[in-house]
Amino acid sequence: VSSEPVSTIPSPMPTAVVSVNRLEAFSDGVFAIAITLLVLELRPPTTLPLAPQLRAMIPQIGAYAAAFLVVGMAWIGHHGLFHLLRRMNKTLIWLNMGLLLCISFVPFPTMVLGLDPLDPVAIRLFALTMVMAGWFYNAMWAYASGGHRLIKQDLSPALIQLMWWRNIAFPLAYGTAFLMTFWKPVLGLVILALVPAGFMLPSRFDAREYRAKS
Amino acid sequence: VSSEPVSTIPSPMPTAVVSVNRLEAFSDGVFAIAITLLVLELRPPTTLPLAPQLRAMIPQIGAYAAAFLVVGMAWIGHHGLFHLLRRMNKTLIWLNMGLLLCISFVPFPTMVLGLDPLDPVAIRLFALTMVMAGWFYNAMWAYASGGHRLIKQDLSPALIQLMWWRNIAFPLAYGTAFLMTFWKPVLGLVILALVPAGFMLPSRFDAREYRAKS
Amino acid sequence: VSSEPVSTIPSPMPTAVVSVNRLEAFSDGVFAIAITLLVLELRPPTTLPLAPQLRAMIPQIGAYAAAFLVVGMAWIGHHGLFHLLRRMNKTLIWLNMGLLLCISFVPFPTMVLGLDPLDPVAIRLFALTMVMAGWFYNAMWAYASGGHRLIKQDLSPALIQLMWWRNIAFPLAYGTAFLMTFWKPVLGLVILALVPAGFMLPSRFDAREYRAKS
Amino acid sequence: VSSEPVSTIPSPMPTAVVSVNRLEAFSDGVFAIAITLLVLELRPPTTLPLAPQLRAMIPQIGAYAAAFLVVGMAWIGHHGLFHLLRRMNKTLIWLNMGLLLCISFVPFPTMVLGLDPLDPVAIRLFALTMVMAGWFYNAMWAYASGGHRLIKQDLSPALIQLMWWRNIAFPLAYGTAFLMTFWKPVLGLVILALVPAGFMLPSRFDAREYRAKS
Repeated sequence: VSSEPVSTIPSPMPTAVVSVNRLEAFSDGVFAIAITLLVLELRPPTTLPLAPQLRAMIPQIGAYAAAFLVVGMAWIGHHGLFHLLRRMNKTLIWLNMGLLLCISFVPFPTMVLGLDPLDPVAIRLFALTMVMAGWFYNAMWAYASGGHRLIKQDLSPALIQLMWWRNIAFPLAYGTAFLMTFWKPVLGLVILALVPAGFMLPSRFDAREYRAKS
Repeated sequence: VSSEPVSTIPSPMPTAVVSVNRLEAFSDGVFAIAITLLVLELRPPTTLPLAPQLRAMIPQIGAYAAAFLVVGMAWIGHHGLFHLLRRMNKTLIWLNMGLLLCISFVPFPTMVLGLDPLDPVAIRLFALTMVMAGWFYNAMWAYASGGHRLIKQDLSPALIQLMWWRNIAFPLAYGTAFLMTFWKPVLGLVILALVPAGFMLPSRFDAREYRAKS
Repeated sequence: VSSEPVSTIPSPMPTAVVSVNRLEAFSDGVFAIAITLLVLELRPPTTLPLAPQLRAMIPQIGAYAAAFLVVGMAWIGHHGLFHLLRRMNKTLIWLNMGLLLCISFVPFPTMVLGLDPLDPVAIRLFALTMVMAGWFYNAMWAYASGGHRLIKQDLSPALIQLMWWRNIAFPLAYGTAFLMTFWKPVLGLVILALVPAGFMLPSRFDAREYRAKS
Repeated sequence: VSSEPVSTIPSPMPTAVVSVNRLEAFSDGVFAIAITLLVLELRPPTTLPLAPQLRAMIPQIGAYAAAFLVVGMAWIGHHGLFHLLRRMNKTLIWLNMGLLLCISFVPFPTMVLGLDPLDPVAIRLFALTMVMAGWFYNAMWAYASGGHRLIKQDLSPALIQLMWWRNIAFPLAYGTAFLMTFWKPVLGLVILALVPAGFMLPSRFDAREYRAKS
């Protein structure tokens, strides 16, 4: 470690430009804003009667709720990773910016998906956005965990490997949704909806956390 | 407690993925953004003269102010609950996401209500959003307080029960507003306006806090 | 103090529902969002050539910059008040909600003002919004400082009185701008622009802070 | 130092109106919101088929991603400066407000640039916004570092000078982009894109941080 650039370790010295906590708080802000801005993509009816127009908006409202859960899931995953970091450097800051760029972009593919949830192009745009988010997430993990470069020293190889499996599952699922649209678009849409549901289930990742306590 | 999954206790160990404070800060961000986005639903006049157009917008401005107070009230209630938690787990994180989804959605029914505050469909949409928010809130409390699963150990049964009464009053009032629209829409609207007013009054909940101090 | 309701003193006890810090952080969020949302009121040209259209938007861009400084000034003033608080209660929380409601509303009168900065109705709407913000601010100070109800015990009467003068100057200036529009609208506009400029000047309030140090 | 106004040193005394941390948190909020609002400038297609319309939006999406990286870079630079401050005063608060005004404005020139990325007026508007941001940034540094007025006492002259070089490079690059548009607009656009890329490269500034550690 001593021979490696240590640009932003949290310290009282002038060398700590951006600390782990600061970048996490900034990222939290971006996640919170992106998740709340999704509602602006729903343009309310401007004429009466309301009922038929609101019924016609049900696909859009469904896309809104689904995107909300996807961003919520990404926020939880982001914390899971930052929680394991012990320090920060310029490379990680910019990989994180790439991830935030994808997350901030989510309102756009969400509205496109709300226009016609079965349009293969709309499903592909949403899936591609999440594949890219997953790619940046995995690049962050690869960079931070390689040789314990930025992660806490006491993390076990088993935990690091478990993170990898979970991290790869995410873009793999969205990549499958992307490919499905060339065959049966509705299957792509089903996968988009199932990923957050799958993330909500108890997993080996949680179980491990439990066992570490008992 | 020892035989139960403890996935996210705040601790220096790698097991604490999302702490109570972190989730509260994230939720605060979503509340602050949702409450501030409400103003975007007010489309200012784009032609002159201004006076008659601004007068015509009074119902919308009223709906804006009412929705602001409703979200403000929900924020205070959210803190009241989080304040009593001692730890966090995956189930609570996702129930909280459901609550935030409802809160983030508020700008939409607010604009619909501003279009015609006496339209029964508009009142129902707003009331239904708040009933769902109340449902998630109560699910959070039921889950966290059941067997003192996630709440502080020293909370008295009297306080827990008092929380229940207050929590049930909230969706009950909005449910009544919903039903009223089938009979007299204006009564539904009056109830929507009275709920935050009622929440502002001194209550047994506050009184108890006082007595605990003296 | 012992005979008075103490609903939300920051403490480890279940009685502290909303602490001073929490409400300040929430308010900061609302200020930061309101000040940043102002830009959304600027609708960029959608056709070419750009130059003449951008020139025509100069009044709007001016209104944007002025409103930005007004909200920035209000944020500084808000901190000046919260900084003097030692505890919080339900009344103060709701007076603060009233203030935040006015601040969140600022993007609306700003866009109206950008439509025609010399229209008396536009100037009155902006001035009225700030008079109401000032009223809530003064109500907060009156309530918190009365009998040292919520402010720090060691605040001198001289400081409390100095706060009053500054607090009254603010809505008085905006009230004057309001009245001026019935005579010469341009004077009202000039006052709107001068208030933040006046707030930027060194003042007895700052001087006192300095003398307290030396 | 003893003979100088010390209006807002972080301290338990009533004199600390706005602390360094508070202003940094507020600024972080504005940066996080401005960077996330950029996506609202992308108006999704409202009719089918999607593919040709999404292809036509590629310049806008590119402008969005470029502006995201520019604001991200400005955020990192802002932290680099605040990190070196030991106290705050009224002048710095208002210079920082000027910087935040420029940052909050970025979504506007971004959308103009997305309309036609090769239009010289669009490139000039974006470049001018960043030149002004750079001016406020440099004014902050000049004011804070002059006679070690607000910066940490132990900062070496070498570090202060290095900050100057980096700070001047930023508006100089954008000023060059501005001037280039009168000759070859495409070169101006290339410079806009290269500035964040240059900021991502390892630099003497980072190297110094490393050497300070070893």
